[in-house]
Amino acid sequence: MEQFEQNVFDYHCTPVAGKIQVMPTKPCQTAEDLSMAYTPGVALPVRDIADNPDTARLHTCRQNLVAVVSNGTAILGLGNLGALASKPVMEGKGVLFKRFADVDVFDIELNTEDPEKIIDIVKIMELTFGGINLEDIKAPECFEIEETLIDICNIPVFHDDQHGTAIICSAGFINGLEITGKKVEDIKVVFNGAGAAGISCAKLLVSLGVKYENLAMCDSKGVIYKGRKEGMNKYKEIFALETEHRTLEDVIKGADVFIGVSQKDVVTAEMLLSMANDPMVFAMANPDPEITYELATATRDDVIMATGRSDYPNQINNVLGFPFIFRGALDVGAIKISEGMKLAAARALADLARQPVPEVVKKAYNGKTFAFGKEYIVPKPFDPKVIEWESVAVAKAAIEEGLATININDWEAYAASLRKRMEKFWCECTMDN
Amino acid sequence: MEQFEQNVFDYHCTPVAGKIQVMPTKPCQTAEDLSMAYTPGVALPVRDIADNPDTARLHTCRQNLVAVVSNGTAILGLGNLGALASKPVMEGKGVLFKRFADVDVFDIELNTEDPEKIIDIVKIMELTFGGINLEDIKAPECFEIEETLIDICNIPVFHDDQHGTAIICSAGFINGLEITGKKVEDIKVVFNGAGAAGISCAKLLVSLGVKYENLAMCDSKGVIYKGRKEGMNKYKEIFALETEHRTLEDVIKGADVFIGVSQKDVVTAEMLLSMANDPMVFAMANPDPEITYELATATRDDVIMATGRSDYPNQINNVLGFPFIFRGALDVGAIKISEGMKLAAARALADLARQPVPEVVKKAYNGKTFAFGKEYIVPKPFDPKVIEWESVAVAKAAIEEGLATININDWEAYAASLRKRMEKFWCECTMDN
Repeated sequence: MEQFEQNVFDYHCTPVAGKIQVMPTKPCQTAEDLSMAYTPGVALPVRDIADNPDTARLHTCRQNLVAVVSNGTAILGLGNLGALASKPVMEGKGVLFKRFADVDVFDIELNTEDPEKIIDIVKIMELTFGGINLEDIKAPECFEIEETLIDICNIPVFHDDQHGTAIICSAGFINGLEITGKKVEDIKVVFNGAGAAGISCAKLLVSLGVKYENLAMCDSKGVIYKGRKEGMNKYKEIFALETEHRTLEDVIKGADVFIGVSQKDVVTAEMLLSMANDPMVFAMANPDPEITYELATATRDDVIMATGRSDYPNQINNVLGFPFIFRGALDVGAIKISEGMKLAAARALADLARQPVPEVVKKAYNGKTFAFGKEYIVPKPFDPKVIEWESVAVAKAAIEEGLATININDWEAYAASLRKRMEKFWCECTMDN
Repeated sequence: MEQFEQNVFDYHCTPVAGKIQVMPTKPCQTAEDLSMAYTPGVALPVRDIADNPDTARLHTCRQNLVAVVSNGTAILGLGNLGALASKPVMEGKGVLFKRFADVDVFDIELNTEDPEKIIDIVKIMELTFGGINLEDIKAPECFEIEETLIDICNIPVFHDDQHGTAIICSAGFINGLEITGKKVEDIKVVFNGAGAAGISCAKLLVSLGVKYENLAMCDSKGVIYKGRKEGMNKYKEIFALETEHRTLEDVIKGADVFIGVSQKDVVTAEMLLSMANDPMVFAMANPDPEITYELATATRDDVIMATGRSDYPNQINNVLGFPFIFRGALDVGAIKISEGMKLAAARALADLARQPVPEVVKKAYNGKTFAFGKEYIVPKPFDPKVIEWESVAVAKAAIEEGLATININDWEAYAASLRKRMEKFWCECTMDN
């Protein structure tokens, strides 16, 4: 661990500070180059955009540019450490956007906790960007900020802490149903954690067919029931249950699915044993899950176990979502990322996991062989097929819902362009995972 | 010209849209790389910054990152075309920052004309950046915005439209004095244009020793005189003159220096003839100067003539300023760019122009030989010595004035590091100018 710490500091601080730089994509060696990049030549695209704002996506990198916006009030699992301390995370997010989907990111750290200010600033900055990724902003403010911005902006606004986990978890859920042969309308789901990720995931499962009355949500004060007063908000209220149960231990009995976005070790072996047959456990607290992979698999043979960790099967990893979702949304000039587009992303990931896993993944993951089943319900992030499946699905959904401003006629050609675009990033790929 | 137009559109639109991309500076091929760039490793620099905010300059690219902020209300010479239309200019500015001084730029286009909003937004974004370059914001709002931000921010805030031209023009002015042997305290200066650049340039000349009573300023309504009511503001008021003169034609008689930041052809041959011996003419209206190089040099043999154009001697080009000034300011963590730092930049440029011009410049400028004199009063932007002279001078001035938060002990080593840093950008340099 000490070595890892040293490596992390070296990684961030040497040979240059930080993890990103802004590079010209066009030649800028000669005076002629500069006369096109800047005055006098640049006046031509300026006038073109003034006459026809749509041409901004041709003359500038706007249509490939996402703002990762944070105020640092909910950094990773570390809490409210402020805007400046969030910067390494936001730069890292930019690295992932670029690495997995060739999306350019400006990270913008805002030194305010006032939701109105954040909304105002993002709206005024909107023309700079093709999309907005909100990040590590604490609940419940994050809900209001995202809802309002989605309403008033003409570009996608997406709070990854809410929807990222929800989408990948839903993909795993779809495949869990497939493996166990259970029907979604009968499935009983228990959540522990009613923050940003929990609420969004619950909404997405409802969209997939889970019934409200089969969905129990717990937070640090226990079950969220109808009539509860303490620690409630309008987002939790949607999932308040008519029930006598008050504890996680009560509601997990007989449940088919446990979804944890809370803290380590809250699920005991006894609680797992009390669940229905073939239970699915998404224990996503990081770095220590609600129940360890070892304990869960030792307790029950029939469990499908997923965590947030990269060193166990079925990692529910946000990076399977945001880069590819924005890629698809940007490529069709989507004006928002709808519930339908999120579901399309989840279904695409679930579908891809059922396909034969390409040989390159074996190589990338140090020779490991993967195949669809209880220990492979979601694809691996380094699977080069993810972008073709997921971004295409999201782009199609946007067009179908009438949310796109750019059309794609030839989907084969689009998928091929994505493949080609990512080749430069894959060429050196080796993985030890 | 048609071919140039086509080239400019191609340059902007192909093979990718726009002129910049955001690239990782650290390896991100393996799962281990990503575990350092993002979770779980990134928690370490986050905690370090939370404990000690100063470490942000080690763990993030903040200390090399400048925001180029515009609302598009005064784009180049084109006027108020709005935030979106300004984006190609701002991306181009980022290209120049990177190309000439390895400074990274996020261009931020703000869709508001309200100075209060712009001030509020920049202040809240401050922690994201190591410096703020305001750009193409119209006068007089630009003055209030810059003044207030300099006051409330702890990082340099610099409105290039004001100070860029002023600094390079001042460098030329210093060398004009050297060549003509005139004394600054006797010099009579006439301005045409009392906008952002004119006011800042007048202030800088006063700092250099020009007397207020020897400085006449005209705008579109003629001479700015004490008691004038029409079209005044508090910035013009500073330069209001006790005089009976009312026109440029009146005040240019006997003047040693004409500085134009106005419009083409406002200076006639007769007006030039009415100036003192060895007059200096800075005719910086773009693309067409207040008097052409041809007319000026045909009218008087003793004129020192500078314009904003790259195809004549003595181009007063902002790119000689902003990249190098921010480079120096960022490297010492300057909390502002003071009048003293601006003067240091102007003096460094003036000094450099007097040195033997390096052979590499001859090569870069298509075999042309340059030497200090009436047709070479400022260096060429592609002179690789500019960064060493100007950035070092700015950094030293910041330290001397107590405005630096990072110290530099070994100035030779610092200059060498700048040289090394820029090598990658110079390697392919060829110029046809």
